Amino acid sequence: MRFEGADSGTVRPGGRTARVRAAVLQATGDALAEHGFAPLDLADIARRAEVGKTTVYRRWGTVTRLVADLLLDMAEQSLPRTETGSLFGDLKANARLVQRTLADPRQGALFKAVIAAATCDAKTAEALHRFYDIRVKEWAPCVQQAIDRGEVPEDTDVHEVIRAVSAPLYYRLLTSGESIDEAAADRAAEAAATAARAGAYLRGV
Amino acid sequence: MRFEGADSGTVRPGGRTARVRAAVLQATGDALAEHGFAPLDLADIARRAEVGKTTVYRRWGTVTRLVADLLLDMAEQSLPRTETGSLFGDLKANARLVQRTLADPRQGALFKAVIAAATCDAKTAEALHRFYDIRVKEWAPCVQQAIDRGEVPEDTDVHEVIRAVSAPLYYRLLTSGESIDEAAADRAAEAAATAARAGAYLRGV
Repeated sequence: MRFEGADSGTVRPGGRTARVRAAVLQATGDALAEHGFAPLDLADIARRAEVGKTTVYRRWGTVTRLVADLLLDMAEQSLPRTETGSLFGDLKANARLVQRTLADPRQGALFKAVIAAATCDAKTAEALHRFYDIRVKEWAPCVQQAIDRGEVPEDTDVHEVIRAVSAPLYYRLLTSGESIDEAAADRAAEAAATAARAGAYLRGV
Repeated sequence: MRFEGADSGTVRPGGRTARVRAAVLQATGDALAEHGFAPLDLADIARRAEVGKTTVYRRWGTVTRLVADLLLDMAEQSLPRTETGSLFGDLKANARLVQRTLADPRQGALFKAVIAAATCDAKTAEALHRFYDIRVKEWAPCVQQAIDRGEVPEDTDVHEVIRAVSAPLYYRLLTSGESIDEAAADRAAEAAATAARAGAYLRGV
């Protein structure tokens, strides 16, 4: 299974350096998913990854840099968008991907942990913003295609439509606590598509 | 100024017990806004509140219980909804209230801190869900009124419409990092109103 985030099961290309990175990032993700951010410790990560402690310290140095690298890897490993031919179809595919990611126990816990970490560390926040920026840009062309088809107004902020699909699902994950199910995903996609068609996401309004 | 959350400047009614609670909750909010959740310490809170340490330990016992009480107080102190006569007007008033809260440096930092705390503590998560439940229920009648006026379909999930207004603003606060300005608030209200009118928030769909 590959979700919005990094896939923990992929065999990755590359030599020893790449394998070390993969093992360490896997261990970091596991530790974050299990315990949240607070007790993260480079020595523990090295032990989980079965990699020398000095390698981890030399290469990443701090927990912040390690988490930033994990977020970069999650963005690199994340799934490309699917194309269905309609705005609602595309946004629904996006919403379902986000939904499966956040509803997955490991991935959901991992996202919670990095988001919590970002609330108290500026570098982690930057890395998190970059992650969402990459994901939003990956999906934004489906809104541009809807503009080209005449389905939504010309001047629509394509990125904002993509963010609008994710927002209700993250709201459930982080604040209100309702379950993140497929109905919630489909509703988020439908609401965003409907509002986009009606011109609610015009630029500079 | 009173925002969605607790107001730090209100003179509250009540005797010594109420004053102690107010001082301790104020100190808790300040500490959370300044440092986030991790270094919260009951002795430090007592010192900030100028209240005896044993009072704080006896009354709240744990940081978790103290934060839960803070969230309860924030819900109790939060502003009642305003009525404007139209769904978009009401949702915009709600969105602007959430926007001012999250864009305010102290309140924004406080919400980030309690949300981060909730990611790694089930009791805090429960208290957080209760807070949003109370706020959503406070505003939901404006959607019911829109149903009664025939502005939105009968079977609309009124709570989900209110959550949809907040979601894009919290998404900016917690994940993507864009600024939480009035334009974002108005757009969130317009998108939710448009989607609600079009039936995107029907129950059980």
